[in-house]
Amino acid sequence: MQPHVEKHFESSATVRDIVIGLSDGLTVPFALAAGLSGAVNSSRIVVLAGLAEIAAGSIAMGLGGYLAAKGDAEHYISEKQREEREVVERTHDEEEEIYEIFEQYSVPRENAAPVLAALKQNPSAWVDFMMRFELGLEEPPPGRAHRSALTIAMSYIAGGLVPLVPYMLVFQNDAALRYSVLVTLIALAFFGALKGRIVGSGWFRSALQTVLIGGVAAGAAYLLARLLNQFP
Amino acid sequence: MQPHVEKHFESSATVRDIVIGLSDGLTVPFALAAGLSGAVNSSRIVVLAGLAEIAAGSIAMGLGGYLAAKGDAEHYISEKQREEREVVERTHDEEEEIYEIFEQYSVPRENAAPVLAALKQNPSAWVDFMMRFELGLEEPPPGRAHRSALTIAMSYIAGGLVPLVPYMLVFQNDAALRYSVLVTLIALAFFGALKGRIVGSGWFRSALQTVLIGGVAAGAAYLLARLLNQFP
Repeated sequence: MQPHVEKHFESSATVRDIVIGLSDGLTVPFALAAGLSGAVNSSRIVVLAGLAEIAAGSIAMGLGGYLAAKGDAEHYISEKQREEREVVERTHDEEEEIYEIFEQYSVPRENAAPVLAALKQNPSAWVDFMMRFELGLEEPPPGRAHRSALTIAMSYIAGGLVPLVPYMLVFQNDAALRYSVLVTLIALAFFGALKGRIVGSGWFRSALQTVLIGGVAAGAAYLLARLLNQFP
Repeated sequence: MQPHVEKHFESSATVRDIVIGLSDGLTVPFALAAGLSGAVNSSRIVVLAGLAEIAAGSIAMGLGGYLAAKGDAEHYISEKQREEREVVERTHDEEEEIYEIFEQYSVPRENAAPVLAALKQNPSAWVDFMMRFELGLEEPPPGRAHRSALTIAMSYIAGGLVPLVPYMLVFQNDAALRYSVLVTLIALAFFGALKGRIVGSGWFRSALQTVLIGGVAAGAAYLLARLLNQFP
């Protein structure tokens, strides 16, 4: 069972990383470009700001993901070492904790006692049991932090380039904005639908949600930039 | 115990939302402004792009957080309804699942049987037990999605304004950039140290990490914008 669980854990973590990177990557550079295109008349500045945003966003999110995964792994190891000590040094307290876990589910002490007896036969299983059922922690797969960082950053870059390509090809901002809105909303809908299928929350509703987030963010950025442009 | 756990869950979730919003808010607008300040000579455009980014980023992250929390809550409810049905309709399979959970920890069937007997006395406790120990799900507090969205968005805005203030006050880009780097690195270090204290991972190391992420992201955005500026 263990390998299966880990594989499942790992692949769903990768999907989550792609979703994190793509959803922000498709939304923020799109909204920034839309906002700026209403305020400056050179598409060069829009592209420049967009690429700077993609560089900043992908690094910030990638490194952030790296540190988060690294922190999870370290937290798991330090908590496990603590449990390993406590099972030996404070055996009685740990036994009480087992009873307390079961008491939350109205399982009386005498019914939980045989489980405790079995766990005491096998201290490493006892530690694993406490990690999962007392602390709610699962062991992160090794090397997860690097993969997480790279997946998030690459997804952010891939998503962020979509809304910028029109500004690179069409030098007239109004026209480029229209193409950018078109391709990005299509990409957001496609990505949202796919995400909905994978997560199992219904493809249409999920597509609507991602389009809505991107649209509201871009609309707000556009209006704000237009408004600010009135007061030079 | 239940209220205590929920309060703990809720406050740590709020801290996590503030950390998510602040760390991206302090980093991405800072890096974008630094990048642009090396490529355009009007601090007005830097401020405009920065504010558009803050609008886009806070909405995208806030709405993203809202939908994530909403999705978690719906997922919990639908899984709970499924467990409630299965405990009644497929009692035998659910009993086997209990044995399988314990077998992972080398607890033999005969030792797990009394726990199962106790859980069968109390179907709602049985469902809660399966939610936690089979599926690893905890009940999200009600109203969490709205609070999460607002906390993330506000933290992003608060963080994002820090690096922009110098560009609003100093109209010469080179000087504004220096002030922006200074105040933002101080803010990142302060925020990182505080985060390290709360999470318990050591304040100095955490401060170093947040400063590093912000610095690397801003440096990359700055270099990229400078480089692209060579090829008009």
